[in-house]
Amino acid sequence: MSLTAVPNLGPATALTCRECGQSYDLGPRYACEQCFGPLEVTYDYSNVSRERIEAGPRNIWRYRDLLPVPPNVTETPNTEPGFTRLVRSDNLAESLGLRSLWVKDDSGNPTHSFKDRVVGVALAAARELGFKVLACPSTGNLANAVAAAAARAGIRSAVFVPSNLEQQKIVATAVYGGTFVTVDGNYDDVNRLASEIAGEQEDWAFVNVNVRPYYAEGSKTIGYEVAEQLGWRLPDQIVVPIASGAQLTKIDKAFQELITLGLVEDKPYKVFGAQATGCSPVAAAFKAGHDVVRPVKPDTIAKSLAIGNPADGPYVLDAVRRTGGAIEDVSDEEVIEGIGLLARTEGIFGETAGGVTLASLRKLVASGALDPAAETVMINSGDGLKTLDAVAAVARPSANIAPSFDAFRKAGLA
Amino acid sequence: MSLTAVPNLGPATALTCRECGQSYDLGPRYACEQCFGPLEVTYDYSNVSRERIEAGPRNIWRYRDLLPVPPNVTETPNTEPGFTRLVRSDNLAESLGLRSLWVKDDSGNPTHSFKDRVVGVALAAARELGFKVLACPSTGNLANAVAAAAARAGIRSAVFVPSNLEQQKIVATAVYGGTFVTVDGNYDDVNRLASEIAGEQEDWAFVNVNVRPYYAEGSKTIGYEVAEQLGWRLPDQIVVPIASGAQLTKIDKAFQELITLGLVEDKPYKVFGAQATGCSPVAAAFKAGHDVVRPVKPDTIAKSLAIGNPADGPYVLDAVRRTGGAIEDVSDEEVIEGIGLLARTEGIFGETAGGVTLASLRKLVASGALDPAAETVMINSGDGLKTLDAVAAVARPSANIAPSFDAFRKAGLA
Repeated sequence: MSLTAVPNLGPATALTCRECGQSYDLGPRYACEQCFGPLEVTYDYSNVSRERIEAGPRNIWRYRDLLPVPPNVTETPNTEPGFTRLVRSDNLAESLGLRSLWVKDDSGNPTHSFKDRVVGVALAAARELGFKVLACPSTGNLANAVAAAAARAGIRSAVFVPSNLEQQKIVATAVYGGTFVTVDGNYDDVNRLASEIAGEQEDWAFVNVNVRPYYAEGSKTIGYEVAEQLGWRLPDQIVVPIASGAQLTKIDKAFQELITLGLVEDKPYKVFGAQATGCSPVAAAFKAGHDVVRPVKPDTIAKSLAIGNPADGPYVLDAVRRTGGAIEDVSDEEVIEGIGLLARTEGIFGETAGGVTLASLRKLVASGALDPAAETVMINSGDGLKTLDAVAAVARPSANIAPSFDAFRKAGLA
Repeated sequence: MSLTAVPNLGPATALTCRECGQSYDLGPRYACEQCFGPLEVTYDYSNVSRERIEAGPRNIWRYRDLLPVPPNVTETPNTEPGFTRLVRSDNLAESLGLRSLWVKDDSGNPTHSFKDRVVGVALAAARELGFKVLACPSTGNLANAVAAAAARAGIRSAVFVPSNLEQQKIVATAVYGGTFVTVDGNYDDVNRLASEIAGEQEDWAFVNVNVRPYYAEGSKTIGYEVAEQLGWRLPDQIVVPIASGAQLTKIDKAFQELITLGLVEDKPYKVFGAQATGCSPVAAAFKAGHDVVRPVKPDTIAKSLAIGNPADGPYVLDAVRRTGGAIEDVSDEEVIEGIGLLARTEGIFGETAGGVTLASLRKLVASGALDPAAETVMINSGDGLKTLDAVAAVARPSANIAPSFDAFRKAGLA
């Protein structure tokens, strides 16, 4: 790989170890050489202003002065994710007994999940760093996002999935072309293989492995958008699903940055986490008062959150505890109820992760952890069309009739 | 039904028969009492300006001064459709031999098809007219859009579909709640039943039946957005799929309005139509030089375009011939190729209707009907996640391997 000698990643200045603070030049690194801690992007924020943001495009690139991407990022073909709807949800609020609730609906992204954001940033950084192939291990949303983004960018993709993946997810990824490999094994096997390949194929950027520090920053844009769409202010409470935990920690980072930069008023906010009980290592650690997250073997219908050993688990605990939030977990039955409640009250069909988040929000209200009088935002991170099986048993027609007005009348539907 | 005596539908002033010109007060009418011709909304455009539009929300309501909706439409809960991406598509253009091509990607709407636009307008008008229930006969996209919009608005929906509809489409509609009836019969039977019910249930608004004049106007917003997103100018050529034909005629109407109002420069543009050969009555009439469209029995994988007796067929012929365009039709094999080409070149996974449109565009270039040097826009009206079966046979993995680097290397994927 011909590494770009001095990559221009806009405001990004270095990679810094989250554990020991060791600093590195920007490059294709993801773990600290001293302590093996994860690396995080640090910035020179001097170009940031509300005016520059508001003059930008209606997608994540309006925040490019806060992201590790080249200044000309809008000029190279990309899927232009972000600036999804922040939906004022009075029906749902009333149903939950909340005074003020918003749903940040990331199903509106190009491939219908928040993954388009992180992949967009990873692609931009990877190209500048000199990588030639955009790759990932995945079980669904990430596979869609990587294959679509690479197609649009005109570069090769290489997506690895477990071979027992549902047929519909295989179709929805394979359609974009690129290299698409099913692997005889579970997601952990696929992930391990991806790390091995990343070590050998030096011009392959596995977005969630060897360019993860850049990739993860993409989730900050959810936090920026929520604040901007509320009129440049922070909500009192935000409820975020936890898979690896990166989405939650990056939304928190975004809020902190906005405060530091004076783009929003400095005020307290609480970050809440949501997991499915069948994969709830972070919720378990939170409830037990532990700092360490003990890995679990996932068993839940919420596949997109089924990471048994979440890389950012400890940082999630830090953010939630620092802000005075909490982490809740819910059964698969509650997830299904949550999907239905969101659809029936607000006309938003979320994927299982959305059901987890809504059901956890409901439980947090019931337990008193979440203040029903305070302004709340919840994230819907993906689309129900991708997890139809989860609700197939309960989402049924009201009636079946013969094609006549008489049959209609007799069915009591008038 | 307690009809609103003098409904306030903003700039809308009357309903006028497209055939005989007879004018009617705004109300729950859809056919001329004199000649049974279809009614169309007429307007007082005096409030329209670029400044007012640009100051509006980033959805279809920025064009409310050009739509039959109450002035306060943004204050009542709705799904906020529109302002979907206009994607500059250089990869696809190169593949097709075009100089400049844009894809208007309506899969970005709340329920992922252009139907959210027409339903949004129908809902706003229906409420103002005094209707209490939002209803439709449908085979898919419209069912999703009506059920979601009614849920969000907090009113009852009543959706009627053929009972042999695919399980996935049933789930994706039923999840929103509301009355959802499967009918033992084909779409024509369901449609006939809907008309019967509309005649009896006086407070039910069947969006595509008894409030159709208002509903259909929603498609104008595609035309407005294309022009605004191009920087307030019209493309040279636009390719639009034909089901009932209303989308095509309303995009043409939008362009005419923009010219008349001086919002864009007056210049020639050509409107092209696209059909699947298995349901191509309008293409057949165009090619034969007929003014009348002869109904057919549909047989195509492009179900969302499978209307054998398109209500707006003759008006489509008028618009296409007036502007110097053409109408093409393509085989199901070409539809599948079209879906794949759009996905591989631009990362956009369109539904079968998008495949029809792209494949027709390709054929129009080959025949010389469409000028490859002129700026072209094509519509992708829906989402590939809703028609996965269409591409399941061809969207396959590149390889299946054991979970080891050795297996990866031997598969020749590096």
